[in-house]
Amino acid sequence: MSINGFGHLLRLTTWGESHGPAIGCVVDGCPPGLGLDDAWVQGFLDLRRPGTGKNVSPRRETDLVRILSGVFEGRTTGTPIAMTIDNVDARPADYSAGAPYRPGHADFAYDAKYGLRDPRGGGRASARETAMRVAGGAVARLVIPEVEIEARVIEIGGETDSALWDAMLDEARAAGDSLGAVVECVASGVPAGWGAPVYAKLDAELAAACMGINAVKGVEIGDGFAAARLRGSENADAMRAGASFDSNHAGGTAGGISTGQPIVVLVAFKPTSSIRIPVPSIDASGAEAEASTKGRHDPCVGIRGAPVVEAMVALVLADHKLLHRGQCG
Amino acid sequence: MSINGFGHLLRLTTWGESHGPAIGCVVDGCPPGLGLDDAWVQGFLDLRRPGTGKNVSPRRETDLVRILSGVFEGRTTGTPIAMTIDNVDARPADYSAGAPYRPGHADFAYDAKYGLRDPRGGGRASARETAMRVAGGAVARLVIPEVEIEARVIEIGGETDSALWDAMLDEARAAGDSLGAVVECVASGVPAGWGAPVYAKLDAELAAACMGINAVKGVEIGDGFAAARLRGSENADAMRAGASFDSNHAGGTAGGISTGQPIVVLVAFKPTSSIRIPVPSIDASGAEAEASTKGRHDPCVGIRGAPVVEAMVALVLADHKLLHRGQCG
Amino acid sequence: MSINGFGHLLRLTTWGESHGPAIGCVVDGCPPGLGLDDAWVQGFLDLRRPGTGKNVSPRRETDLVRILSGVFEGRTTGTPIAMTIDNVDARPADYSAGAPYRPGHADFAYDAKYGLRDPRGGGRASARETAMRVAGGAVARLVIPEVEIEARVIEIGGETDSALWDAMLDEARAAGDSLGAVVECVASGVPAGWGAPVYAKLDAELAAACMGINAVKGVEIGDGFAAARLRGSENADAMRAGASFDSNHAGGTAGGISTGQPIVVLVAFKPTSSIRIPVPSIDASGAEAEASTKGRHDPCVGIRGAPVVEAMVALVLADHKLLHRGQCG
Amino acid sequence: MSINGFGHLLRLTTWGESHGPAIGCVVDGCPPGLGLDDAWVQGFLDLRRPGTGKNVSPRRETDLVRILSGVFEGRTTGTPIAMTIDNVDARPADYSAGAPYRPGHADFAYDAKYGLRDPRGGGRASARETAMRVAGGAVARLVIPEVEIEARVIEIGGETDSALWDAMLDEARAAGDSLGAVVECVASGVPAGWGAPVYAKLDAELAAACMGINAVKGVEIGDGFAAARLRGSENADAMRAGASFDSNHAGGTAGGISTGQPIVVLVAFKPTSSIRIPVPSIDASGAEAEASTKGRHDPCVGIRGAPVVEAMVALVLADHKLLHRGQCG
Repeated sequence: MSINGFGHLLRLTTWGESHGPAIGCVVDGCPPGLGLDDAWVQGFLDLRRPGTGKNVSPRRETDLVRILSGVFEGRTTGTPIAMTIDNVDARPADYSAGAPYRPGHADFAYDAKYGLRDPRGGGRASARETAMRVAGGAVARLVIPEVEIEARVIEIGGETDSALWDAMLDEARAAGDSLGAVVECVASGVPAGWGAPVYAKLDAELAAACMGINAVKGVEIGDGFAAARLRGSENADAMRAGASFDSNHAGGTAGGISTGQPIVVLVAFKPTSSIRIPVPSIDASGAEAEASTKGRHDPCVGIRGAPVVEAMVALVLADHKLLHRGQCG
Repeated sequence: MSINGFGHLLRLTTWGESHGPAIGCVVDGCPPGLGLDDAWVQGFLDLRRPGTGKNVSPRRETDLVRILSGVFEGRTTGTPIAMTIDNVDARPADYSAGAPYRPGHADFAYDAKYGLRDPRGGGRASARETAMRVAGGAVARLVIPEVEIEARVIEIGGETDSALWDAMLDEARAAGDSLGAVVECVASGVPAGWGAPVYAKLDAELAAACMGINAVKGVEIGDGFAAARLRGSENADAMRAGASFDSNHAGGTAGGISTGQPIVVLVAFKPTSSIRIPVPSIDASGAEAEASTKGRHDPCVGIRGAPVVEAMVALVLADHKLLHRGQCG
Repeated sequence: MSINGFGHLLRLTTWGESHGPAIGCVVDGCPPGLGLDDAWVQGFLDLRRPGTGKNVSPRRETDLVRILSGVFEGRTTGTPIAMTIDNVDARPADYSAGAPYRPGHADFAYDAKYGLRDPRGGGRASARETAMRVAGGAVARLVIPEVEIEARVIEIGGETDSALWDAMLDEARAAGDSLGAVVECVASGVPAGWGAPVYAKLDAELAAACMGINAVKGVEIGDGFAAARLRGSENADAMRAGASFDSNHAGGTAGGISTGQPIVVLVAFKPTSSIRIPVPSIDASGAEAEASTKGRHDPCVGIRGAPVVEAMVALVLADHKLLHRGQCG
Repeated sequence: MSINGFGHLLRLTTWGESHGPAIGCVVDGCPPGLGLDDAWVQGFLDLRRPGTGKNVSPRRETDLVRILSGVFEGRTTGTPIAMTIDNVDARPADYSAGAPYRPGHADFAYDAKYGLRDPRGGGRASARETAMRVAGGAVARLVIPEVEIEARVIEIGGETDSALWDAMLDEARAAGDSLGAVVECVASGVPAGWGAPVYAKLDAELAAACMGINAVKGVEIGDGFAAARLRGSENADAMRAGASFDSNHAGGTAGGISTGQPIVVLVAFKPTSSIRIPVPSIDASGAEAEASTKGRHDPCVGIRGAPVVEAMVALVLADHKLLHRGQCG
């Protein structure tokens, strides 16, 4: 089972709550002999870190990662790589167990499932968990040096012209509201043949990897929903000698297996659920009460989502490189 | 690993090629004591069966399922349920190993991965495999009698007015072309609390389940990509006393766990890749050659996708019912 | 989860009851391009088949295997390999649901777990299931052509002199009783480096594989329990130049990883539980009643256990060859 | 995959090397609402701790455990429970990468597998890892309050009379040698019906759990190898009204499922491989060189094995309680 773990041969397990003493992860199954140190992982974490601008949460976390195992003299040993980050700027007092359920948050669902929960900053459901995805993704990248992965925000609040985003975010922040975003991730250099048929299709694994990121509500491979509006003759990616393609409607996969074209994934992030504008809700006793978030939050969670999408894509691709090597040599 | 298997506690493993002697599946982990016979499964298979109308493949398969194990005197015993369907109308002579790779098909990718493949009708990559998903889904439904699952085509070729679809399909078929479709699936009656945080989120598992269906290129939960264009205050599903909600932008999940609202999944099917219109391609030797499909195919594969989506959603929900009962009693 | 499945990258899933219409299995994850046909598998099944001598069950099963998928033109394609055997000589009338629980059998435990069971010949708990382990093992052997696996009975009824076994078995059979056996399995040609630390140790996987065979109550690697009676200086396998060893107390593994020495596994089979001699028991209503088996059974189930042990060892080693290749290239 | 993880629904993942900064684990899938704090886990760790007597390693580790996640106000929340122990008395200088491979240790096998390794105190292969098994087992016990688990050493150096053990250990220690041991573990209170058929048999899972403990070479359920020397009529556990049994040759399982009798597991520990007596070996360059261990080690590793066996048995039983609840309600 995989409640808090992800991947098959290269496997990430994460732990930690938003306002507990620390968060961490274990990366199991990493090939031996790869150069790895704290600084490599830190570089990716710094891209995702809160407190680095007005459009991301003002929570001040240094997010300093420490590798505690699995590396000897700067190289991976093949044993599990444990990493932790101390929570420095936790403010559990910002949160109370009796507060109304915040609509769009996991509060109500966690209580329904577990009968209790850690209310401090969303506990385990906080986007803080994604720091460890980024840490795991940094290791995964070492496994696939032939692949370049780049994710970027291509749309905020329905607007694709990035010149307008800053003003839109200022307005939303001032209004105590939030905006959604779309992130596009392209992985180049993936050779044809990674992936697997039927239930471990590269498409299916990428979809699970990205849909499982906090606030994500939609995933597309290649043309995605737009492909459903094309005719078969328009959607066909013609091939030429040398196994080149005229187009990439498919987004780099066919039958769940990579074709050698760039893997293209689009990911929809809903607007941050934590907003100052009050929303009708109930509390744990069932009484009606307005919810209004006072903690520190991103006006657009999708902005910090790009490095997380990159990490998840890296984890899937690295895992499938190993799986392919396992089955096919 | 899960190359040809799906699910955690309730696990479907499928086998079989499009033009081999038979296809089949094993459902492992089914609770004991559930009433099950061939007729129950057959009912669902008949909804998906080819040869039943002008808009689906004219291949004449009776698709008669036989349950070979796991049932005693009409009740499940808790042991694996094996089911098979003989391939009656297989026409392997329609296909040849030397034919050009069909763009949009798994042909090229399979050769790249495995170095060889069964060329007869797509072999393992054929949508014929989805019959066993439907059979597995029929068993899964028995596990979740409290849930009603209904999927329907809501868009064909970009058109949402169903009165126009018939003419559109006639036109595409006559032109040797094909159309895409969007399927919406709603699961009602799911109690709050199914699902799991982080990497086994209900959203992630539904995304993997649906993105892994042949020809699917996009999956949305609730408002999906449209949510990325809403403001946080618009997207919030306000709650009222009695744990009712004013809206269901979230599509029935929060933090990866069901909220008690209907689960809503949208699935985009690309247009059938098998078209009569020639498309530039190459053959296994690398030589350029036009690909044009002469076998029997659906002009819109999404039409037969609806029962498959239902089945996959049923499998995910049944699995998570058992997982929830396992962890939380 | 692995209720009826076994293995990680190379995965065997079996199904079927002793007196149902058929038994079968699916082997998932097999590398492509390996030569495989029915005859190869049949050869191993014939070594295990009942009805071939006075010391094995007189049930007349031809045990003819059919490969239904995953093979094209005599070579594996990398897709799941389904195999089935029809139950020809099933005699369900020999068994009745109201019969007393047979001590040593799964009857009582199945009823306690599932609330119902297929009473015909032990249903799923019958040793008939092991035919599919042998079939799966036949495929596994193709994955590890460098390895030679040979299992043999080294002890029956506590006696290691094989010249005495025939008379012992005659006597036990005439008395309506049964004898236990010990099987030794040696796998030569395994290179150093297969296996994995900690929870996927080769030792642990071999132990699970063999302890899960019907009637097995003990497993040893190398010297096993005898090692617990040696001093450290006696038990040490001294090494010489060329990575050769003076001895093999360890049975070919260290730290869960193969050393290049032969893998040695000892497996203890209890005496067949099905005996004619009456044993006090109870029936499903809880009433006391003597149990006495009238069906056709082996006087020493361990005799037919040797090919099953070979198969399980082959499955573990093939799986770990692929796992090693996956992680370490 | 399960290289460094163990269990299905209740899943332990461990990390850390003997002489790295810390060791740790993550317990995933724990039911919510169980009372848990550091002191509970510490109690079990103290039973296994080194430095507590002349017959266990003189390494001075306080083994103070910290729970870092998954617990809120003294109760489990259902999210992953991370625990760590700092390595206080690590002495990496005791070890050198160029030292000869120690026979019976993982040194040679790790190098053969990974091409490099952490040489400090056995790195990941050190028995220090078992501290985290004990920590995980402490959590598992909370899941199965109805079960009492007790393991004890029943044999040292082939001697069952415990009055003689002290002198034997003194002699072995003085001689720079070591002794093996046998540990018996009995789990009482397990209801009939836990476990699962075929590949997740309780027997198979207990065998894997115990054979995977450092230095273990043999596992028996119930009478184990002795059962292979009994006749069927002797080995039969007769049943009486009220589902009581006259005997427990089976060790509490039938068909892989618990019968309600005590679960009995015997585990053979080889003598500690680390001995002062020199043994011929080779070094990483292949040159012959004598190996003689100078680090601090237990003269009989089996003595500290008992709490580890208890922990592994607790993990298996807790996991199967959840699995049974999942499938059968």
